[in-house]
Amino acid sequence: MNLLIKNGRIITADQDYVADILVDGETIVRIEPSIAAENDVEVIDAAGKYVFPGFIDPHVHVYLPFMGTCAKDTYDSASRAALVGGTTTLIEMCCPARDDEPIDAYQLWKSKAVGVSACDFSFHMGVTRFDSTVKDQLRQIAEDGIQSFKVFLAYKGAFSVTDSELFQVCRLAKELGVIVTAHCENAELVASLQSELVASGNLGPEYHEPSRPVEVEAEGVHHFCTFLEMTGASGYIVHTSCQPAVEAAQKFQARGVDVAIETVIPHLVLDKTYAERPDFEGAKYVMSPPLRDVSHQAFLWNAIESDVIATVATDHAPFDFVIQKEMGKPPESDFTKIPNGIPSVEHRATLLYTHGVLTGRITLQQFVRLVSTNAAKLFGMYPTKGTLQVGSDADLVIWDPEYRGTISAETHLMNTDYDGFEGFEIAGRPAVVLCRGQVSARDGQFTGTLGHGRFVARKSRNQASES
Amino acid sequence: MNLLIKNGRIITADQDYVADILVDGETIVRIEPSIAAENDVEVIDAAGKYVFPGFIDPHVHVYLPFMGTCAKDTYDSASRAALVGGTTTLIEMCCPARDDEPIDAYQLWKSKAVGVSACDFSFHMGVTRFDSTVKDQLRQIAEDGIQSFKVFLAYKGAFSVTDSELFQVCRLAKELGVIVTAHCENAELVASLQSELVASGNLGPEYHEPSRPVEVEAEGVHHFCTFLEMTGASGYIVHTSCQPAVEAAQKFQARGVDVAIETVIPHLVLDKTYAERPDFEGAKYVMSPPLRDVSHQAFLWNAIESDVIATVATDHAPFDFVIQKEMGKPPESDFTKIPNGIPSVEHRATLLYTHGVLTGRITLQQFVRLVSTNAAKLFGMYPTKGTLQVGSDADLVIWDPEYRGTISAETHLMNTDYDGFEGFEIAGRPAVVLCRGQVSARDGQFTGTLGHGRFVARKSRNQASES
Amino acid sequence: MNLLIKNGRIITADQDYVADILVDGETIVRIEPSIAAENDVEVIDAAGKYVFPGFIDPHVHVYLPFMGTCAKDTYDSASRAALVGGTTTLIEMCCPARDDEPIDAYQLWKSKAVGVSACDFSFHMGVTRFDSTVKDQLRQIAEDGIQSFKVFLAYKGAFSVTDSELFQVCRLAKELGVIVTAHCENAELVASLQSELVASGNLGPEYHEPSRPVEVEAEGVHHFCTFLEMTGASGYIVHTSCQPAVEAAQKFQARGVDVAIETVIPHLVLDKTYAERPDFEGAKYVMSPPLRDVSHQAFLWNAIESDVIATVATDHAPFDFVIQKEMGKPPESDFTKIPNGIPSVEHRATLLYTHGVLTGRITLQQFVRLVSTNAAKLFGMYPTKGTLQVGSDADLVIWDPEYRGTISAETHLMNTDYDGFEGFEIAGRPAVVLCRGQVSARDGQFTGTLGHGRFVARKSRNQASES
Amino acid sequence: MNLLIKNGRIITADQDYVADILVDGETIVRIEPSIAAENDVEVIDAAGKYVFPGFIDPHVHVYLPFMGTCAKDTYDSASRAALVGGTTTLIEMCCPARDDEPIDAYQLWKSKAVGVSACDFSFHMGVTRFDSTVKDQLRQIAEDGIQSFKVFLAYKGAFSVTDSELFQVCRLAKELGVIVTAHCENAELVASLQSELVASGNLGPEYHEPSRPVEVEAEGVHHFCTFLEMTGASGYIVHTSCQPAVEAAQKFQARGVDVAIETVIPHLVLDKTYAERPDFEGAKYVMSPPLRDVSHQAFLWNAIESDVIATVATDHAPFDFVIQKEMGKPPESDFTKIPNGIPSVEHRATLLYTHGVLTGRITLQQFVRLVSTNAAKLFGMYPTKGTLQVGSDADLVIWDPEYRGTISAETHLMNTDYDGFEGFEIAGRPAVVLCRGQVSARDGQFTGTLGHGRFVARKSRNQASES
Ligand SMILES: [Zn+2]
Ligand SMILES: [Zn+2]
Ligand SMILES: [Zn+2]
Ligand SMILES: [Zn+2]
Ligand SMILES: [Zn+2]
Ligand SMILES: [Zn+2]
Ligand SMILES: [Zn+2]
Ligand SMILES: [Zn+2]
Repeated sequence: MNLLIKNGRIITADQDYVADILVDGETIVRIEPSIAAENDVEVIDAAGKYVFPGFIDPHVHVYLPFMGTCAKDTYDSASRAALVGGTTTLIEMCCPARDDEPIDAYQLWKSKAVGVSACDFSFHMGVTRFDSTVKDQLRQIAEDGIQSFKVFLAYKGAFSVTDSELFQVCRLAKELGVIVTAHCENAELVASLQSELVASGNLGPEYHEPSRPVEVEAEGVHHFCTFLEMTGASGYIVHTSCQPAVEAAQKFQARGVDVAIETVIPHLVLDKTYAERPDFEGAKYVMSPPLRDVSHQAFLWNAIESDVIATVATDHAPFDFVIQKEMGKPPESDFTKIPNGIPSVEHRATLLYTHGVLTGRITLQQFVRLVSTNAAKLFGMYPTKGTLQVGSDADLVIWDPEYRGTISAETHLMNTDYDGFEGFEIAGRPAVVLCRGQVSARDGQFTGTLGHGRFVARKSRNQASES
Repeated sequence: MNLLIKNGRIITADQDYVADILVDGETIVRIEPSIAAENDVEVIDAAGKYVFPGFIDPHVHVYLPFMGTCAKDTYDSASRAALVGGTTTLIEMCCPARDDEPIDAYQLWKSKAVGVSACDFSFHMGVTRFDSTVKDQLRQIAEDGIQSFKVFLAYKGAFSVTDSELFQVCRLAKELGVIVTAHCENAELVASLQSELVASGNLGPEYHEPSRPVEVEAEGVHHFCTFLEMTGASGYIVHTSCQPAVEAAQKFQARGVDVAIETVIPHLVLDKTYAERPDFEGAKYVMSPPLRDVSHQAFLWNAIESDVIATVATDHAPFDFVIQKEMGKPPESDFTKIPNGIPSVEHRATLLYTHGVLTGRITLQQFVRLVSTNAAKLFGMYPTKGTLQVGSDADLVIWDPEYRGTISAETHLMNTDYDGFEGFEIAGRPAVVLCRGQVSARDGQFTGTLGHGRFVARKSRNQASES
Repeated sequence: MNLLIKNGRIITADQDYVADILVDGETIVRIEPSIAAENDVEVIDAAGKYVFPGFIDPHVHVYLPFMGTCAKDTYDSASRAALVGGTTTLIEMCCPARDDEPIDAYQLWKSKAVGVSACDFSFHMGVTRFDSTVKDQLRQIAEDGIQSFKVFLAYKGAFSVTDSELFQVCRLAKELGVIVTAHCENAELVASLQSELVASGNLGPEYHEPSRPVEVEAEGVHHFCTFLEMTGASGYIVHTSCQPAVEAAQKFQARGVDVAIETVIPHLVLDKTYAERPDFEGAKYVMSPPLRDVSHQAFLWNAIESDVIATVATDHAPFDFVIQKEMGKPPESDFTKIPNGIPSVEHRATLLYTHGVLTGRITLQQFVRLVSTNAAKLFGMYPTKGTLQVGSDADLVIWDPEYRGTISAETHLMNTDYDGFEGFEIAGRPAVVLCRGQVSARDGQFTGTLGHGRFVARKSRNQASES
Repeated sequence: MNLLIKNGRIITADQDYVADILVDGETIVRIEPSIAAENDVEVIDAAGKYVFPGFIDPHVHVYLPFMGTCAKDTYDSASRAALVGGTTTLIEMCCPARDDEPIDAYQLWKSKAVGVSACDFSFHMGVTRFDSTVKDQLRQIAEDGIQSFKVFLAYKGAFSVTDSELFQVCRLAKELGVIVTAHCENAELVASLQSELVASGNLGPEYHEPSRPVEVEAEGVHHFCTFLEMTGASGYIVHTSCQPAVEAAQKFQARGVDVAIETVIPHLVLDKTYAERPDFEGAKYVMSPPLRDVSHQAFLWNAIESDVIATVATDHAPFDFVIQKEMGKPPESDFTKIPNGIPSVEHRATLLYTHGVLTGRITLQQFVRLVSTNAAKLFGMYPTKGTLQVGSDADLVIWDPEYRGTISAETHLMNTDYDGFEGFEIAGRPAVVLCRGQVSARDGQFTGTLGHGRFVARKSRNQASES
């Protein structure tokens, strides 16, 4: 069946115009000032609304085992929450344990999504050890369309790679045209500061931030970028939270290093005072890098405004407050045992729109770049995704700028018992969300089908330039 | 008449694909995998060739009175040279003397182009004094579609504005949504260093660079960006020549200042040793900011590679060596009397392609951004110009990557008796250039018509975001 | 008569030891582990006390005409207040109006001190215009022992110099071996922001800071340092108040520019919330550069800790709250009419000791460098002043670390009707202060003689290196 | 016996005056304008000469096992060479292998010097692993007067410490008031780049620099300084060779991190073209960090001029060209097997004087700070050493500014078969060198006694501030 979106104001990364869009099956086939509705076409009136390309969240966790427990979402809940918020493609972190074979982990992670997800999906392939077996498997995984690796400089003893492994990952990435995404915090400094704090009896969630200060993140960024510079690989810094980290990356950019900067929605609207809330309430706000002093929030908005930051993701990692976050509750336990993460896959676009577009900090076109286009380009999905043009996937968001509402765990679709943005007012939300032609959400309700989502095989940087 | 470009590899700022393009009159009307040639259509076979959007040179001088003489090009010669090199739109600097009324100057400059130019054109409006009369006239000029001002921090006693004027220009620009372009060198330091050098008998062209060192340019950039920051205006730094100037601008970008960086082709392929050539030969290479130590060239290429620099222009300013450059010949005269400029409007794209694309420093898509798309976006012409899509002007360059040739004053179309790139080998050049549907150049020959060029009324930043 | 200071812990810029000091007349003649008291010697027991070199305040205003009124101190009150606080040498800013002849201004300023001051004194010679007459007079003044100039980038229309004048001042300074001290704020930005704020009805003292933001100061520093770099002159930035200003200066230091950084005591213990106090109370805290956000205070302390900042001065400028500060009281008037300054010559050392030494931020030796030695070295008085060694002037402070007290206008000796540090608790103060052998203060009481103070003819940098 | 030095121009870190110096035994007992020669005194006429405090070389290697061979100097040759060059105190790196017990290594290293050295000596204690045994032994070593540790971020698999060890070393150093000196190059990047170069057949000494580029050193500095910042320890970066490394350290200094920067004489007068000399001649110039592009040399001189760099040491590490350097000769071997080091303990002061003082880059007082005073202060020997005052050790250098000579392996006292500065002309040298009262060198001849040198027990930072 065909869909005709009439009279919408089409906003892409670099355009802003009123036109009609005709969707045939999964694809956009015509964009013209006025398209007549033919027989079998369903017409959606988008007058007074914006039409954005479907949003892409390039940094989420769905399947996430952690200290014997597991994050609460499955692709069932996560993809429904994503779609309601306008996100039509997820890129999940596949994080094998150091001893796992990458290929097994990859298959496992993928199997959780295939046939379940209502939205499209891909993965960043976590590299948590490196040897010749791993190398062969990574080649194979890249051939399957996974054109990004993920490394952790943090999480000593769990995910973190050695400098030697980091060098080899970057070299392989360079060869394959794969981009290296990185969690940049110095593992050892975090581990040492954590043990000192705990040893001194500083157990509560308010000590999470002091255990990984901004300097530790800046050092991670500096370290990672040096490896990019020495190997020629392209890089992407996930969840950058503070001024010194951004400035460190910028220095390398000016020297010709191809490195992009991500920030995540919690760092843009929350700050460390949330993690300092009494009665263990702060645990809801424990993520890494931690929520920072509010001055860094102001800096990040400026960096967004001037396009220094490329993407706004979520680092969605959903754990319940009761039982799960409580694993780190003093006095029996401590903040290092709190599962990290603030569930947010559902709220990214509405929060960014409310705090960014409506405040005048960013334009509509910047909004599109931040939540969709830049991720599509960086991760080899453009122009199939990330824009609205003839031939693109019919992933699109018809945005209702008039909507006003309030975030609450009572109404959210994410599978957690709390919402970190409880009570936050939002302005604007998706009226209609299309995922490859399917009307998957309307006005906050999921209207799609589980299993509709498809694995997205992405292009490498080498393919992109050979094409 | 219609034109059909078949089988070309279409390269835009963010795409790379093979398709056919149908031009109807002045406009692109279809881009599809395969378009059948109908009756009255002229078919151009672009197989094996790239199809780029027409190039935009955002910084040229054509009409340029200087110390009783005048630059050698008219729109006749300049537009032909531009088109042969693939440039279909010029933005010229309109530079009134301090006592001139802006509106008169604007009309004068425009009159030189209208009816003469073979390619499209617009202007940056030079502001060389500021009072309430000027203010009114600037509003009027902006309403005519001139959405950029130009200020000079350099050229004491001629074009330079006071800090008080600079503040007011920026405030007006902010109000009107006009971008402020700036020549950033501290006027007084240049003047003082010049007089000291001349007083010491250092008269030759090799003393031009020491009279305006990189620190003087960096201070100009820092100064200008502070005014942008204090007023909220958008800015654009012309002909950035060195590392400290770029780094100064970057610092402001990270703080949210909207400022873009231009460099020019001479700074990318020449260096200060050219200006040190004996027998006054160096005078051919006198421009401002001056050609720098070769280490800055390497830095600029890196900054281009990582998209820190937005545009590559020319600062085309054509003076003859004989008689004109000789106005500054010792011992009777000195380097401060040498008319500034290196003619280059014809060679920008071929040099950037040869030294940038073929060396692997930049991709084809970066090439398009640097010579076309970014200028179109920054200066309010996108997507009419700067891209290839349905509805855009049929400005396009069919590029022959197989061509090999050598630059020479004997064959160039620019109206000067020397060529600063004499003997430089180039690889690749435009096979066919379309300017709004007209085949204006073929294989180095001008095939257009004088007077075909049209004044481009540009959109302001306010219009763009209201649209 | 001779004085023998016994058992004190002697603290200099780089030493810390217990010894006796014998003073003969105005000079230190012996420093030895144990000196026997001979006949006519007066013995001062310094057991349990520190013995510091006499403090030097390198930035004060005493005689200061301003908009028809005049600062309240004379050398009578100012020198007594200085001595009680341990300061034995003042360097006052001599600030001629633009039309004054420098030599006349210099004689006038000097005449206010000679025969009146109880402590030693010198001047920075303000240069507020530059021509050949001025040049000759400056040479003459330098020959009289005034080896420092002062320029204002701020105060448009009053003191500020043009870029052309600035260049020439620096060149002359370089030639003479004179150091150039500078007030670094862009005059025009301040003037423009002031008129905009006033025009918008923002009249209160809380608008003083927004009228001269940190960026304006950073630009001033960048501007000034570029002139130093281009001329080879040595420089000194007075009353640096914020992070971007310090960072700007540091960049130039790394490139070999000889520039030192001063901060002043108000910026170390007050912040902009003081100037936001209601009922015009904020006017007491209006100085330029303004008191800043408290985050800059933290930065300055760090920069002090790591010796990036060379001196802590006061910028003492004493105006009464009643009548004088009230000249800028809304609604009849506005913040631009408030005389600038926070009286503090009396409190510098006690506040720095309390907030710096006792908190562990700085060592005793750093304390000595900041309040004495570095100023002596920078301004050509070392080792006559600024240290304790045989041959040095017998300027010394016997410091009682046990003292506890509270600052109040009721007890201070400065001639103003308020004290900006009212109610601040202090720990430690001078028990005995010697100015060239005279016991000039004891436990907060002045015990010296007016007129004892002597003009200090200082050495130029050229003399220092020739000597 | 007493010594009387008459009429010398005494130069210290902050003074410059003519006076006589009386030495009694090992100590300076009087400094006065004119001291009469009494009976048993030996008089040295220093008219027309400078009198400097004895020089301190804070970074040398004497006993240095390396891949089955050993550096060529013993304390016999090294101390004689040092003294002839004016250096009266050496601080040697004690570098245990990872498996060695620190206390054994310390005793071993010390035993090589005691009873042999003609000049005074101390050690930086290398920490190449960290556990509770090591911790206890380090406390013990610190109590013996070794108030500085040395860590290697470079030399993977040999000396380098893990991040975890680095954190603990810094914490212990903070507790003890010990300064941490560090060789800052990322071990893994060097190892990886080395294997790639060797695998590609790039075997010659000219590949040593590309195997450890400036970015690798800058990362080392950034990494180390972050650990200092997180632990509060004081640090010292040895042999800083390039602009990005210095700039990285400066950033931390401004934030309050107590870190000092050393450079070494080879980096100030040689550059990487030396290591590119044909016929394996380049091997003579292999040291780490490597000799750099000459632009970094210019930067280092500027940083010295503005006191950003604290000390000029040597990193003296003497290996013969024949047999020893040849261990890395292609085609059988490669550059990674070349013993690192350029012997220079003898030439530091003469080269710095010739290239620094005589060229006008630095003053005489800066010279003293760089070769003596700053090291004495940083490493707990001041004012016993590093200055000339009553009570100081009678370590002094009477410098003949008229001497002219040429460096050659034929005449040098270092025990190597080549001299890296062969043929370099020098101006000025020590006429007389006193080491604790003993005339140990005269005009290039050793006149001292082996075994006269004494171990210097140094003060910790805690002792210094408690004293
Ligand atoms: Zn690192
Ligand atoms: Zn994550
Ligand atoms: Zn220009
Ligand atoms: Zn400026
Ligand atoms: Zn121009
Ligand atoms: Zn002042
Ligand atoms: Zn080393
Ligand atoms: Zn070493």
